[in-house]
Amino acid sequence: VAPGRRRIAKAAGLTLLGLAAAAVLLAGWRIAFYSQHDDDARVARKQAYLDAVAARGRGTGPNVVVFLFDDLGAGDLGCTGSRAIRTPHLDRIAAEGARFRNGYSASPYCTGSRAGLMTGRYPVRSGLDHVLSAPGTLPDVGLRLGGMNRRLPAEEITLAEVLAAAGWDTAMVGKWHLGDYSPSLPTERGFAHWFGLLHSNDQGKPRVWRDGSVVEEHPIDQATLTRRYTDEAVAFIEQARARPFFLYVAHSHPHVPLHAPAERLGTSEGGLYGDVVEELDAGVGRVTDALARRGVDGDTVVFVSSDNGPWFQGSAGESRGRKHDVFEGGMRVPFLVRWPGRIAPNQVRDELVIGIDVFPTVLELAGIPPPPDRVLDGASLAGLLTRGTPGPERVIWFHQLGIARAVRDGRFKLQDRRVIPYGNPQNWRWALGVEQGPYLFDLVTDPAESYDVSLRHPAERRRLEGLLQAHARELAENPRGWK
Amino acid sequence: VAPGRRRIAKAAGLTLLGLAAAAVLLAGWRIAFYSQHDDDARVARKQAYLDAVAARGRGTGPNVVVFLFDDLGAGDLGCTGSRAIRTPHLDRIAAEGARFRNGYSASPYCTGSRAGLMTGRYPVRSGLDHVLSAPGTLPDVGLRLGGMNRRLPAEEITLAEVLAAAGWDTAMVGKWHLGDYSPSLPTERGFAHWFGLLHSNDQGKPRVWRDGSVVEEHPIDQATLTRRYTDEAVAFIEQARARPFFLYVAHSHPHVPLHAPAERLGTSEGGLYGDVVEELDAGVGRVTDALARRGVDGDTVVFVSSDNGPWFQGSAGESRGRKHDVFEGGMRVPFLVRWPGRIAPNQVRDELVIGIDVFPTVLELAGIPPPPDRVLDGASLAGLLTRGTPGPERVIWFHQLGIARAVRDGRFKLQDRRVIPYGNPQNWRWALGVEQGPYLFDLVTDPAESYDVSLRHPAERRRLEGLLQAHARELAENPRGWK
Repeated sequence: VAPGRRRIAKAAGLTLLGLAAAAVLLAGWRIAFYSQHDDDARVARKQAYLDAVAARGRGTGPNVVVFLFDDLGAGDLGCTGSRAIRTPHLDRIAAEGARFRNGYSASPYCTGSRAGLMTGRYPVRSGLDHVLSAPGTLPDVGLRLGGMNRRLPAEEITLAEVLAAAGWDTAMVGKWHLGDYSPSLPTERGFAHWFGLLHSNDQGKPRVWRDGSVVEEHPIDQATLTRRYTDEAVAFIEQARARPFFLYVAHSHPHVPLHAPAERLGTSEGGLYGDVVEELDAGVGRVTDALARRGVDGDTVVFVSSDNGPWFQGSAGESRGRKHDVFEGGMRVPFLVRWPGRIAPNQVRDELVIGIDVFPTVLELAGIPPPPDRVLDGASLAGLLTRGTPGPERVIWFHQLGIARAVRDGRFKLQDRRVIPYGNPQNWRWALGVEQGPYLFDLVTDPAESYDVSLRHPAERRRLEGLLQAHARELAENPRGWK
Repeated sequence: VAPGRRRIAKAAGLTLLGLAAAAVLLAGWRIAFYSQHDDDARVARKQAYLDAVAARGRGTGPNVVVFLFDDLGAGDLGCTGSRAIRTPHLDRIAAEGARFRNGYSASPYCTGSRAGLMTGRYPVRSGLDHVLSAPGTLPDVGLRLGGMNRRLPAEEITLAEVLAAAGWDTAMVGKWHLGDYSPSLPTERGFAHWFGLLHSNDQGKPRVWRDGSVVEEHPIDQATLTRRYTDEAVAFIEQARARPFFLYVAHSHPHVPLHAPAERLGTSEGGLYGDVVEELDAGVGRVTDALARRGVDGDTVVFVSSDNGPWFQGSAGESRGRKHDVFEGGMRVPFLVRWPGRIAPNQVRDELVIGIDVFPTVLELAGIPPPPDRVLDGASLAGLLTRGTPGPERVIWFHQLGIARAVRDGRFKLQDRRVIPYGNPQNWRWALGVEQGPYLFDLVTDPAESYDVSLRHPAERRRLEGLLQAHARELAENPRGWK
């Protein structure tokens, strides 16, 4: 080998080594120190809105209780058709109020769905249309390297922040999943009290928090988690004072790993999953009993839903797909609303409703004006629920990682060819263009999304493709939905 | 670099190069020349059986017509609950005979299922529990490299070979998928006539064959394939002579790519898939009309089924999973049997029946003894169908690549943890042991396999685990099932 060539090889080698070292340092820096930034002007505008809400004086609206289950399927309740699981307390809520057969979550996975519920906006607005994980886990490193949001941005307004400003007493029990560092803990986002987990019960080493402190280190007692959440919820209701309250019960189950108290194991025809759901149902019963004991049934609107469709176990009812999918099974969830005296009992309704509707609905029921500086994707169901007026004109978007992959606005649903095959690898064939897609589904004749009816209904196909494209353009121009 | 080191490096490099060249040559030889071998003694024993059948004289049993659809879902017919697709002719077959609500295919994919139907044995017996592909395609190279069977072994006995020996006139139209080289074409395995495709309509460059010759080169006219198959079937019935006949109509559709005649496009509420299925149904109607015109309705037993559950489109009814899965949706298929005057009409039955039952059922109806030298996994349904006797004691095995992954023998089904996640990547979590599995499903309270009831029914779990283990031992000792 000639000396000249050796010198070139040596220089090239050193250069490569330097670049590699720089990349490693950069990645290390991102992993260790990446944190997202808040927009100070937006934060100031948000504060002005909350101040204006507070200036209106203490609220007189109803108490609000939201039960959110984790990975509970649309078909897992007695009142939604389960032949295996008994849920008498949830069934009673349905019987005393409205059950929606076309209820959706805001996203087919946890974090996105919870961001939507808390803000009344699709999670793409808050840059949280993905799944957060515990620090140090591989998915968390991926989020840091990608510069993805790892907490709900400070400029987003949570339902708890609005109600707290309006004078409501606020408490949360259960899983947060909207950020694990300040300023994004539940107690920093509007909840005066919090008892629960930061992440899913299978992420990292789950620990139990009370407000800003860890009160139980890993490994936690998952078998009693539902009961302990319920104890906290009941205690909160029992100590509630004259002013209205907002109680958010975000159960960690039936997300895997499944755990139930020893005396419940093997008691449900739905197996361990059924044991877990029946334990959840018993907890719901204890909370509604507490409301009845306090005599506030008629002053309390109760919402029941799930953050997405079922995962490994659990029933998606007659829907195709499961958690993560943009098939119906990914986002179709139980959706119950009860307010004795204000919402007529025994209603089984077919309007399209979605988790992001809770925020504007509660604001209208509480007489609080919505924030003026941002798009609220959700729609108030107050008129529909309490005055029997027609439901809002509805478009349901199905996003994956911030991109709209499907749209439904009534009988028809269009699913784009380019869906992420989290839950269904056969989608790879669609993604690769082997199949013809996009697919138009007629959910009236074909609730399980088995048949692309593009040929039969070409005008619907064109109309929904137009909607999807317009929505993509809107998101590209103004993803956060600022006005 | 010292000269000694250089010499060592040179020798190592040459050795590696040599090994790589040898590997390439070996692989090339395998790809080019690999072919499986037959066992001469077994082939001779088979011939002795067929000779004995022939020596009994010309048969007097019924004509046999088998309709097998490709990737048709259990929920795709009017009579099985479709709200989108109209199948009046298939519904009429159901109304004039028996419809089985627990009908299975022998395998969750094409080749395996067809091997089972033709031999009355699970495809693991013939070493064909996988999917064949066209020569030169990547899957075919994989099969050659792996030394997997690429045709139905000669020592296997097909239903066509038995019936031909017994004096039946035999014809096949449609997809074979049991080997693409001699001696394994349909006309070499018992069918006097054949018109159709060797493989699926999406594999390689599909060509249309008549007997041993190609009559239409790629690209073939897929839109008229169903009609042309039907023309051939009707012509065969019309020219049938005094002796009984066996007609196997193995439609290529609704396997992808979907094609239908221009005048049918856009006419079904099931979209293009529905157009294709309604075209298939019209073809079934033309064949049953031909039977009626010949006045042989009362002399003809008609079977209708599918080779596995639906793939991208199509409805699995209330089942979970699709083609490839060992969930019910992989193997639950339409299963109709009609024989006017011998099988009572309007029967909707719940016995467990499976494609491998056709072989022993037809043999019993035709008065032909079964081959004595091998296990027949199928069971005769003749008594159940014609005399109303109880159905056979039943175990349904769900194999993937020759390994039993699930078992059902009544209300309960056990699914092993180690399933191949063809259709459901969430199974990776099961395969990796993240989930607890094996899963015990109660198909009475939970037809969609949503809940593992191992805790609730531990004795059933143990019993079915024992069955699965015993079956694995049997297969390890005598996979071909020789007696």
